[in-house]
Amino acid sequence: MIDISRSALLTDLYQLTMLQAYRQHGQEETAVFEFFVRKLPEQRGFLMAAGLEQVLQYLEELHFTAEELQWLAGTGKFNHDFLDYLKDLRFRGEVHAMAEGTLFFSDEPILRVTAPLPQAQLVESRLINLLHFQTMIASKAARCVLAAPDKQLVDFGFRRAHGAEAGVLAARAAYLAGFAGSATVAAGPLFGIPTYGTMAHSFIQAHDDEMTAFANFAATNPGAVVLLIDTYDTEAAAQKVAALAPRLHQRGITVKGVRIDSGDLAENARRVRRILDQNGLHDVTIFASSSVDEYLIKEYSDDLVPIDGYGIGTHLDTSADAPYLDCAYKLQEYAGRPRRKRSEGKSTWPGRKQVYRHYGDNGIMLNDVVTVVDDLRDGRPLLQQVMHDGLRAQPEPSLTALREYAAQELASLPAPLCELGREPPYSVLISESLRKLAARLDSAKLDDAYDLPRVQ
Amino acid sequence: MIDISRSALLTDLYQLTMLQAYRQHGQEETAVFEFFVRKLPEQRGFLMAAGLEQVLQYLEELHFTAEELQWLAGTGKFNHDFLDYLKDLRFRGEVHAMAEGTLFFSDEPILRVTAPLPQAQLVESRLINLLHFQTMIASKAARCVLAAPDKQLVDFGFRRAHGAEAGVLAARAAYLAGFAGSATVAAGPLFGIPTYGTMAHSFIQAHDDEMTAFANFAATNPGAVVLLIDTYDTEAAAQKVAALAPRLHQRGITVKGVRIDSGDLAENARRVRRILDQNGLHDVTIFASSSVDEYLIKEYSDDLVPIDGYGIGTHLDTSADAPYLDCAYKLQEYAGRPRRKRSEGKSTWPGRKQVYRHYGDNGIMLNDVVTVVDDLRDGRPLLQQVMHDGLRAQPEPSLTALREYAAQELASLPAPLCELGREPPYSVLISESLRKLAARLDSAKLDDAYDLPRVQ
Repeated sequence: MIDISRSALLTDLYQLTMLQAYRQHGQEETAVFEFFVRKLPEQRGFLMAAGLEQVLQYLEELHFTAEELQWLAGTGKFNHDFLDYLKDLRFRGEVHAMAEGTLFFSDEPILRVTAPLPQAQLVESRLINLLHFQTMIASKAARCVLAAPDKQLVDFGFRRAHGAEAGVLAARAAYLAGFAGSATVAAGPLFGIPTYGTMAHSFIQAHDDEMTAFANFAATNPGAVVLLIDTYDTEAAAQKVAALAPRLHQRGITVKGVRIDSGDLAENARRVRRILDQNGLHDVTIFASSSVDEYLIKEYSDDLVPIDGYGIGTHLDTSADAPYLDCAYKLQEYAGRPRRKRSEGKSTWPGRKQVYRHYGDNGIMLNDVVTVVDDLRDGRPLLQQVMHDGLRAQPEPSLTALREYAAQELASLPAPLCELGREPPYSVLISESLRKLAARLDSAKLDDAYDLPRVQ
Repeated sequence: MIDISRSALLTDLYQLTMLQAYRQHGQEETAVFEFFVRKLPEQRGFLMAAGLEQVLQYLEELHFTAEELQWLAGTGKFNHDFLDYLKDLRFRGEVHAMAEGTLFFSDEPILRVTAPLPQAQLVESRLINLLHFQTMIASKAARCVLAAPDKQLVDFGFRRAHGAEAGVLAARAAYLAGFAGSATVAAGPLFGIPTYGTMAHSFIQAHDDEMTAFANFAATNPGAVVLLIDTYDTEAAAQKVAALAPRLHQRGITVKGVRIDSGDLAENARRVRRILDQNGLHDVTIFASSSVDEYLIKEYSDDLVPIDGYGIGTHLDTSADAPYLDCAYKLQEYAGRPRRKRSEGKSTWPGRKQVYRHYGDNGIMLNDVVTVVDDLRDGRPLLQQVMHDGLRAQPEPSLTALREYAAQELASLPAPLCELGREPPYSVLISESLRKLAARLDSAKLDDAYDLPRVQ
């Protein structure tokens, strides 16, 4: 049986046909691949790196099961020698990467794999699959956090996430970026993420009247009484909450909040706040959901709409305004020689690279420099070794620690980017040494750089 | 350990807190929920139902493991009686649904669950998660197929899919809708989907020259020689293919095709076609990838661009132009009485419903009627019973059979919708009996419909 989340067959067919050719022709020297984003989406001024832990787990565990090899044999595409070779194939390379939660920009590698060519090649598909998704979600979530740093933000997106793994990884990426937690229960045991929940309209509808529904829910779940008030008439329901709250209070049950999930959320929140306040329920919070994204949160924050927290689902888990990143995992060096792809509109900066970040006296990010690894520079080097010989170089960091680091990163972001704008764009400088290397490769007028001096 | 793709915790926390209240207050009568799309995205004139098989598998297998129950107990949110109850909870309901591959429109339920309230409620999150994603992808893929029915379309999207499950389910949904297959290897053993692959730029770059790369790949993979020709200079590479092909031919190896993955695909394809034809390589096909979607395919088809097949990745697997569907799973009846949610902008058609489809003499779809189930009508009823007492009512259909059915569905689509337009929209009529039921519920001026006569 194929394990949907762990199979070595979670790869593109061409990786295996290429590996078969590498194997047959002895191309097993050291390759260096880097993962980077070519160009930020129009709607993004920065990105937040995420997904590294899942990549490292994948690399540590990667192997072909007997059943997988049998299936491959049955395709008739692979010879015996190659299938034998796959049986023993493990990832034994080095990985350098930016820590999860690090902010980054276009043309900056966030991960570098250094390994025998077949190993570094095989892992491409799943590695992009894992880094692309969580980075996209963490970046979207970070924008929501910046739009309302003092609000409680909860991931509500499981139902619109693309399958199960997307649901739990979206919860993880959003928590990393500063969300309070997720409604997705599995994210609790998997990642230790706090889980949140209220009630659905169906709960109200399944009762003969709304008041009974509220009372029943509170009686059974006294520790988490957040009542959904927009099933029929939002203001009427708020009045019911006002009538119910003192009765519950006598039984030691506190109404924590109400949730509004439809209509003009701002207008509804103002009316509901008035009703709650008129009844002395100043501590009952208002939680809003339904098509929420960072643009709406920012508008409401600017307008001082009395909403205390947001459930963010569809727009978060699909990154709806920027539903993909233009990212790539590209060969930058093979057998000691830098490589450069020159396809129209898709050329890459060659060689092994490092990114140095500089800060102003106020601790705010000033600019980054992308350069070749042997061009040592001042500044903070963002890529650090995280895997050695196929094993983690450090123990797995806690998600809480990564989340705190991500918050520090957001605190160092220049003001225009905090405002969700893109102008002026953050300054990423390509070093002179990197430009020279690229020019030398281009001027070689060869298919490739095979007459260039070996590096390192 | 939590099984990421099968855990009963793949649900929202509120389902469990609601279930605890249902349990405590004895609300276990029969509930009817329906899944439907409220409104088609601007960019869609029709949708294709998909994901049912995964839903049925989930419902058949659903149970809480000892470890999951232990984790729930540790949250302190759930009482002993409820945890005991969860231990034995299984889905034992009925499901009616449209077959996968069926075309549908807004306000039409594509799936109806009839089960004791807690069972029907609990499954909401994962059921939407599964139906939403595959339906969205099948709908996008169907548009690609309509744009170029005679081209070979292959899913290249695994790397930009949202995790592993999204990758393999996207491959499945695209194949259902008429794609030739997928590059994702795991989709082969999981679903019997044909897998396709060529080579990556890294393969070319890892060789000292492009010609050696081509020759090595062909020697090792003689049955699948599709050469990637845009790593450095596309036309120069096409000339190399022309030089290499006769030499390979002498060794019994046929160059099947070339792939172009950058630049102006149409212009590049025309130039490459000329070079291939000038060298007598009329049977070598041209395969194109890079930011391909149905709009580009349609434009190229209209312009007779000499491209024989497309690899469609990012835009397919993220449904980039319409990255989510406005879908819902709503309570329509409880304890024999129809229910209607009346939230602003989100009100629903109440009761158990059926959709009847009518066809013209030419076999083309004419209109649909949505009505209550006891309002028997002429026309083809689209919802059929697929699960009885928690077990499949029929054996699992083969994906090939579903794919043939989907092709028939597309063949019956009115011409304007085949052209990817939305005007005139397909006619979905709400029956008089359904309108009357909704009006009766509204005029009851009650929270709910508890004084209405019981149905069925």
